Amino acid sequence: VQRLPRPVLERLPRYLRILEQELLNHNDYTSSLYLGSEIGVEEFQVRKDLAFVDIQGIPGKGYPVRELSGALKNLLGLNVSTTAVVIGAGRLGQALTQYPGFSSFGLKIVGLLDIDENKVGEKVGDLEILSAVNSSSLIRKMQVDMAIITVPAQEAQHVADEVIAGQVRAIWNFAPVVLEVPPTVFVRNEDLTIGLAFLCHFLASTPARTKKL
Amino acid sequence: VQRLPRPVLERLPRYLRILEQELLNHNDYTSSLYLGSEIGVEEFQVRKDLAFVDIQGIPGKGYPVRELSGALKNLLGLNVSTTAVVIGAGRLGQALTQYPGFSSFGLKIVGLLDIDENKVGEKVGDLEILSAVNSSSLIRKMQVDMAIITVPAQEAQHVADEVIAGQVRAIWNFAPVVLEVPPTVFVRNEDLTIGLAFLCHFLASTPARTKKL
Repeated sequence: VQRLPRPVLERLPRYLRILEQELLNHNDYTSSLYLGSEIGVEEFQVRKDLAFVDIQGIPGKGYPVRELSGALKNLLGLNVSTTAVVIGAGRLGQALTQYPGFSSFGLKIVGLLDIDENKVGEKVGDLEILSAVNSSSLIRKMQVDMAIITVPAQEAQHVADEVIAGQVRAIWNFAPVVLEVPPTVFVRNEDLTIGLAFLCHFLASTPARTKKL
Repeated sequence: VQRLPRPVLERLPRYLRILEQELLNHNDYTSSLYLGSEIGVEEFQVRKDLAFVDIQGIPGKGYPVRELSGALKNLLGLNVSTTAVVIGAGRLGQALTQYPGFSSFGLKIVGLLDIDENKVGEKVGDLEILSAVNSSSLIRKMQVDMAIITVPAQEAQHVADEVIAGQVRAIWNFAPVVLEVPPTVFVRNEDLTIGLAFLCHFLASTPARTKKL
């Protein structure tokens, strides 16, 4: 698979999300104008981005949604299996471990670790919580692709160091902190405050309805 | 507060996220080039977007990070208090209810509701789980700004109908489904599969390290 430029890679999954909505809405074709307006870029940019997959738009109809979605999934590596461990068996870690939407994108969570010895041995779905103390050798043995970090902010860098020593190639970071990692390791930060900012702006800029309504 | 165009509103919170990273890294100034490369847009677009706040870049230095961050928070409505109820007291709902990062952005979660009568009365932090059965009158009485929906996909539309009848003005939807809402209600969909796509593409496009490493 070719490596995409980062700005393109920022946008393709978002097109994919819109396309999946279109499929749910039984729309067989969609336009670059619509895709652009939904994710906040110009139409020409959408067309440039979609040139990375070999799907042609049909004049007067637009892009075929199902084909485009399938081609994007291929390009994004969502059609191959990815293994991950979750570090931090708090509520978020447990929620992610059992999130039903991941398996259709090829993600298999094969381990759930926590530093708290009182949690070790508890079951979450099919997984038994394992000790995260000196976890690098365990993670290396598991040969996982990715670590999902859901520990508190102040513990996250230490956990990142451990999983990198355990030879994961990517980190999905849910701790609200910037991780320092070697350039060979890919980090994706998941920050819920972005969504929150979106909502708060809407509320702040829209007059409240009167009591009567 | 003026209402921002949706594409701009898509991008401003993401600049804010980068600015907060810059602050953590003790960088006092940042550039439109850097901001653009981090979120995947061209430099000229960054400058156009940042014209919505009255912060000037300094030639040769760039934008002052702290001032720009503060101005964006004001513009995005993150400096005023927002109240919310969480519907769905599963693991994700409980995790969000106790997420420590929200309060600094003015979000106060004042209720946690679930349809499961066995959960009603349990405590999550300071909140007691309330019944989500016929919740619209309860939500109307609470006068909350926002509902956070963390129920399974097949229940989400029904819950959305209830909270809209309860006069919330915005919905933060974590269920992987497209909600139908009146145009006066703002919906933000939070879809973790976007982050997952990002990681999977990196893994698929990068050769695995050899065992030797």
